[in-house]
Amino acid sequence: MNRFDYTVVKIGGNVVDNPEALASFLDDFAAIPGPKVLIHGGGKIATKVAGALGIESVMIGGRRVTSPAMLDVAVMVYAGLTNKTIVAGLQARGCNAMGLSGADGHAITSRRRPATPVDYGCVGDIVSVNTVLVQSLLDSEIVPVFCAITCDAQGQLLNTNADSVAQAVATALAPLGRVKLVYCFEKAGILADIDNPLSVIRHITPQTASSLIDDGVIAGGMIPKVTEALRAVTEGGVGEVVIKSSTDLLLNTGTVISL
Amino acid sequence: MNRFDYTVVKIGGNVVDNPEALASFLDDFAAIPGPKVLIHGGGKIATKVAGALGIESVMIGGRRVTSPAMLDVAVMVYAGLTNKTIVAGLQARGCNAMGLSGADGHAITSRRRPATPVDYGCVGDIVSVNTVLVQSLLDSEIVPVFCAITCDAQGQLLNTNADSVAQAVATALAPLGRVKLVYCFEKAGILADIDNPLSVIRHITPQTASSLIDDGVIAGGMIPKVTEALRAVTEGGVGEVVIKSSTDLLLNTGTVISL
Repeated sequence: MNRFDYTVVKIGGNVVDNPEALASFLDDFAAIPGPKVLIHGGGKIATKVAGALGIESVMIGGRRVTSPAMLDVAVMVYAGLTNKTIVAGLQARGCNAMGLSGADGHAITSRRRPATPVDYGCVGDIVSVNTVLVQSLLDSEIVPVFCAITCDAQGQLLNTNADSVAQAVATALAPLGRVKLVYCFEKAGILADIDNPLSVIRHITPQTASSLIDDGVIAGGMIPKVTEALRAVTEGGVGEVVIKSSTDLLLNTGTVISL
Repeated sequence: MNRFDYTVVKIGGNVVDNPEALASFLDDFAAIPGPKVLIHGGGKIATKVAGALGIESVMIGGRRVTSPAMLDVAVMVYAGLTNKTIVAGLQARGCNAMGLSGADGHAITSRRRPATPVDYGCVGDIVSVNTVLVQSLLDSEIVPVFCAITCDAQGQLLNTNADSVAQAVATALAPLGRVKLVYCFEKAGILADIDNPLSVIRHITPQTASSLIDDGVIAGGMIPKVTEALRAVTEGGVGEVVIKSSTDLLLNTGTVISL
C-alpha cells in the first residue's frame, strides 16, 4: 500500500479553519498505512482571539511580528485548541494521536531568530529534532501531531514556520527509512498554467526545477516552497516531497519533487 | 531522598496565575527525585479570555457550566498556554516534561457527565487512565504534565476536575509502586483552627477523619477533598496523600492522609 516507511503530512490554515474540510482530511489521514506524523499550521482563529484581546497585529514587510502577547495567543490556539481538536478527531477515528509542541519531551529545539536585520519577535528557527523521541512514539504506534510552536534551550516558546517543522521532522526521520513528505495546500499541485487547475506539473527534479523557475512557471511564493522541497530531497535524504490538495491525500495526485 | 516510587503533584489556579509563584514552584518540582507527574488546574486567564470573546459564564448552583464555546477557551488556555508555559519552564530547569491532555496518546478517557439532574455541559468524569503510556513515559525519564482536559471514546474533549485527574493518575500508578499524591493549595495544610495558620493537622487516618468531620474541624470544601484523599489511600492503594502549600513542596510539611 505504501512504499514509504514514514509519511509526514503538513496542513495549513485552510484545512484547520474549516470543520468539514478538517473532518474529511482526518478521515484520509487516519487511513494512511504505517508510521506517520502530522504537522499543522495556524489559522485565522488566532487573529480573531488576538483581536478580541486587543492585541494588535504588527506587520513588517508583509510578515507578522510575534510580540510576547501574540505568542501567548499562538500558543493558546495552535498548541491548545487546534492541536487538541485534531488529536481528539484522530482518536475518534481510531488513530492514536499525541499532540506535541517543540517543548514537549524536548521534541524540537529552536533558536530565536536574530533581531537584525528585522526583529520578527518571538520567532524561532529550528536547530534540532529529537529523533529518538519521535521514533519511540512511532514504534509505540503513536502518531505525533505537531503544532508549529517550538522552544529554545532556555525554555522560551517560539512561533515557528509549519513548513519548516514538517521538513525538519521529515529530514530527521530520513536516516531511519524512506520518508514521504506531503505538503497539503489549496491547489491540486504546482500548476504549469496558474489559470488552469488541470495543468498540474506531475514531477519536478533538481534538473527540471531551474528551467521551470527561469521560465516563470514556478513563481512568487512557490519558489521558496519548491526550493525547500528540493533541499529536503537532495540534502535531507527525504524520498519524495509531494505538493497537493488537502482533499486528495489518498490519491496519486499533485506535484512530486524527487531526485 | 524519596521513599516513594512515584510522586504525583497537583497545582491549582493560585500557582498557575502567578508567574513568580509558578517559577518558584517549578524550581521545587524539578528537584523532586524519581519518577513524577504534574497535574495543573486552570486559572483566571480562561475567564479573562472568555470575557474578551464575549462568552458568558453560566453558573448553576455556584458551579460553572462548560458550554461548547467555554470548552474551546478551556482547551486554549489549559491545554495550550498554561500547559506549554509549565512544560517550557520545566525544560528550562533540565526536567524533560511532556504536556498531555486526556486525548493525547489516549492518556485519560472520560465520559460526559449525565445531563440530569444538572447539565454542566462539556464536563467529563474519568473512566480510565492509560497506565501503559504513563509508565512508558516515566520509564523514558519523561515527566508527564497533565492539564484537566480529557476526552471521551467518541473524541469529544471534556473539561474535568483537576483534583480528580490527579487522583486517577495516582491510583493508576499504585499497582506499580508506592505513590505519594500531593495536593498543593494556598494554605499550609488542613488547619485545626482556621484562623491559626500554625495549627496544621499533621496526620489524618480513616480512623481520625470521622471525628474531625463530626467536630467540625474538617468542614466545608475540605470535606470532599479529605473524603477523596481517604478513598485514594483506602481503595486506590495510594501510599499517602499530602495536602500542603505550593510554596513548601520540598519541605516535610502539610497534612498527611494515610492508613
